[in-house]
Amino acid sequence: MTQTLLSKLDRREAVIGIVGMGYVGQPLALRYVNVGFRVLGFDINADRVAELNAGHSSIEHIADADMAAAIARGLTCTTDISRITQADAIIMCVPTPLNKYREPDLSYVTQTCDAIAPYLRAGQVVSLESTTYPGTTEEEILPRVTAGGLVAGQDIYIVYSPEREDPGNADFNTASIPKIVGGHTSACLEVGTALYTAAIDRVVPVSSTKAAEMTKLLENIQRAVNIGLVNEMKIVADRMGIDIFEVVDAAATKPFGFSAYYPGPGLGGHCIPIDPFYLTWKAREYGLHTRFIELAGEINQRMPDYVLGKLIRALNDRSKPLAGVDILFLGISYKKNVDDVRESPAVQLMELVREHGGRVSYSDPHVPRFPQMRAHSFDLVSEEISAARLAAADAVVLTTDHDAFDYGLILEHAVLIIDSRGKYRDAAPNVVRA
Amino acid sequence: MTQTLLSKLDRREAVIGIVGMGYVGQPLALRYVNVGFRVLGFDINADRVAELNAGHSSIEHIADADMAAAIARGLTCTTDISRITQADAIIMCVPTPLNKYREPDLSYVTQTCDAIAPYLRAGQVVSLESTTYPGTTEEEILPRVTAGGLVAGQDIYIVYSPEREDPGNADFNTASIPKIVGGHTSACLEVGTALYTAAIDRVVPVSSTKAAEMTKLLENIQRAVNIGLVNEMKIVADRMGIDIFEVVDAAATKPFGFSAYYPGPGLGGHCIPIDPFYLTWKAREYGLHTRFIELAGEINQRMPDYVLGKLIRALNDRSKPLAGVDILFLGISYKKNVDDVRESPAVQLMELVREHGGRVSYSDPHVPRFPQMRAHSFDLVSEEISAARLAAADAVVLTTDHDAFDYGLILEHAVLIIDSRGKYRDAAPNVVRA
Repeated sequence: MTQTLLSKLDRREAVIGIVGMGYVGQPLALRYVNVGFRVLGFDINADRVAELNAGHSSIEHIADADMAAAIARGLTCTTDISRITQADAIIMCVPTPLNKYREPDLSYVTQTCDAIAPYLRAGQVVSLESTTYPGTTEEEILPRVTAGGLVAGQDIYIVYSPEREDPGNADFNTASIPKIVGGHTSACLEVGTALYTAAIDRVVPVSSTKAAEMTKLLENIQRAVNIGLVNEMKIVADRMGIDIFEVVDAAATKPFGFSAYYPGPGLGGHCIPIDPFYLTWKAREYGLHTRFIELAGEINQRMPDYVLGKLIRALNDRSKPLAGVDILFLGISYKKNVDDVRESPAVQLMELVREHGGRVSYSDPHVPRFPQMRAHSFDLVSEEISAARLAAADAVVLTTDHDAFDYGLILEHAVLIIDSRGKYRDAAPNVVRA
Repeated sequence: MTQTLLSKLDRREAVIGIVGMGYVGQPLALRYVNVGFRVLGFDINADRVAELNAGHSSIEHIADADMAAAIARGLTCTTDISRITQADAIIMCVPTPLNKYREPDLSYVTQTCDAIAPYLRAGQVVSLESTTYPGTTEEEILPRVTAGGLVAGQDIYIVYSPEREDPGNADFNTASIPKIVGGHTSACLEVGTALYTAAIDRVVPVSSTKAAEMTKLLENIQRAVNIGLVNEMKIVADRMGIDIFEVVDAAATKPFGFSAYYPGPGLGGHCIPIDPFYLTWKAREYGLHTRFIELAGEINQRMPDYVLGKLIRALNDRSKPLAGVDILFLGISYKKNVDDVRESPAVQLMELVREHGGRVSYSDPHVPRFPQMRAHSFDLVSEEISAARLAAADAVVLTTDHDAFDYGLILEHAVLIIDSRGKYRDAAPNVVRA
């Protein structure tokens, strides 16, 4: 069985099924098609499936032309989960969010497993790519996949291989980012390695699915903690009359042992603010408390409040309240040059300003209309920035430093700039660092 | 005045005075001599001065031949502080430790300033290289240097330029590590930049002495926090049956956004465990609490206890108590391939084992005899490791993973290895990860 599947993968005759055609599934599907595989893309969202089959990517950094070419070459998207049986490899790329008590919400993963279970057959490999706590594959995937009698490592192969997508990163893509793979058995690892070797330049096998799960968490935990640290340092430096951005730049000249992280208005996106708490939750089962994660979460979540305080003080220095004045936000996605507003600190800050009675508007070339979000609602469209519009705002808050902004124009015409990204390094009377 | 000094520096006619001929002062003195300057090396330790003048370095990684050559070419060491008046540049490289309440002990800095003050004259530049809190140069150096009437930035130039020595680093040396410089005035910065440009490949000017002070602290704070984080992750991973070293190695394959830090038996050396608390102390003046620093300190300081627990449990599994048994420590310096035992966690662990009644011995090719230390006293010399010696110990504790150790021999003959450095990645019945 193992040899048959390995040989299919090697000859690119295997059908790759990707479940969850979002920001992870889409580029992965394109990559498999581009190296010669037939790919089935599964999604529960019928509108998205229709759009994809019509050659329209739902992601800004994936061109429609690339999606259309993939559809022409061998990608078929579908909502029909029974077609899982046609796939030799099943790769799950579904969300793993937190609920409002910061507990893991594995419902997308378990519902996917339950949905595919009736259609599983011998000779398939099932891989989970969603970020999750150590033990998920063994505790949640394995029992569901083997419930019908298939034996893991013999009939069916179970692996965990975390996605490492970095939207907006111009230096690395799906193929060139090394891929960690852990298998439930050694045969599972062998098949998982073959599955990804077919499409990814470098595959890194580890000794267990747990080790692979922990690897992805450690990457994002380190990032959350380092951002938390530099945010705390920003507050200290600010009080001491020191520019933290200058300090980080200077420290970054050390050619070893230092990595530059920059402070900001908070922590955003679907990974860094969320993933670490998957470990926090699981660690409790062992009676352990993940203190760095908690501290980073606490400090990072407080940053929008910090920026708000700077805004209120700067307005106050100009004898203005926040209530009733015109606050224009520049950039509302969670990081620069992307269109993703999930968990964006800019949006949290917009909420805070609105709660205080400020009149909120925004400009973001990547987000033409404020999207539907679970927790936030603004009936707004992106405004064009002109000299007049900038001059009319009581304050502009630079929340996301997109390359597309005309920073010279902003500096020239804005009455007051609250700069949370260190974009304006030289002192100016209308710039307040936040 | 400025032009005269700049010209002397440019023509290498300036005399460089270095105060504190330790692990920072010695390589810096050698570098200035090697680029053609005359150097006066000041130290309060007459024995060390005599040794240096006789061509004997006190530091393992500086060869006696290099020191002897420098003495022959233009380095003179002295205890006579009145000769400061002969120096055009005065570079202070003295220790900045903590007292037992973890408060900054600036006595070496202030005593140096008071000692040199009577011999200062117009046309000199004074640079502090010791790691310290933001504000030290303005608050402690400036008043002492200008007490006799010299005007800073006009008669005398005051700069802060943190040392970035990394003993044992084969890739970078004094000349190739970029040097941060902050000046009290713009003329001070100009002179300071010229002083270091003469000897260092790349000089990085920053806007103030405070910014330069903060830069060095941020570098070491980031390191302390990241080591604290991975030590906490080690404890969590261990309980989950995951090998943290495998996980760090796997995460390090991510080509962006992750830096590998490895756990260990604690945090050692004269910088990383100490420097961060300089900021903690100063931040209190501003009503701020540096929580990441405190947390990292707490976790890192607890690691020797964690290793002790692993040792006691492993002995217990072999039906042995710790009291009365033979514990051989491998490596007692604070990091590998160096001879420095300051703040070494290995030494703290030796103390703990002795307190519990264990019989303590050690082997360290870099530390032939246990040195005199302020807080620790062991009347021990380094033992040779032989098959018989290893087999005789009830446990060997790998505390510092020097390259010089014969790890195959240790694995073959030791009854029990407590490995705190992840040196033995494959499971073996006599290896316990700690």
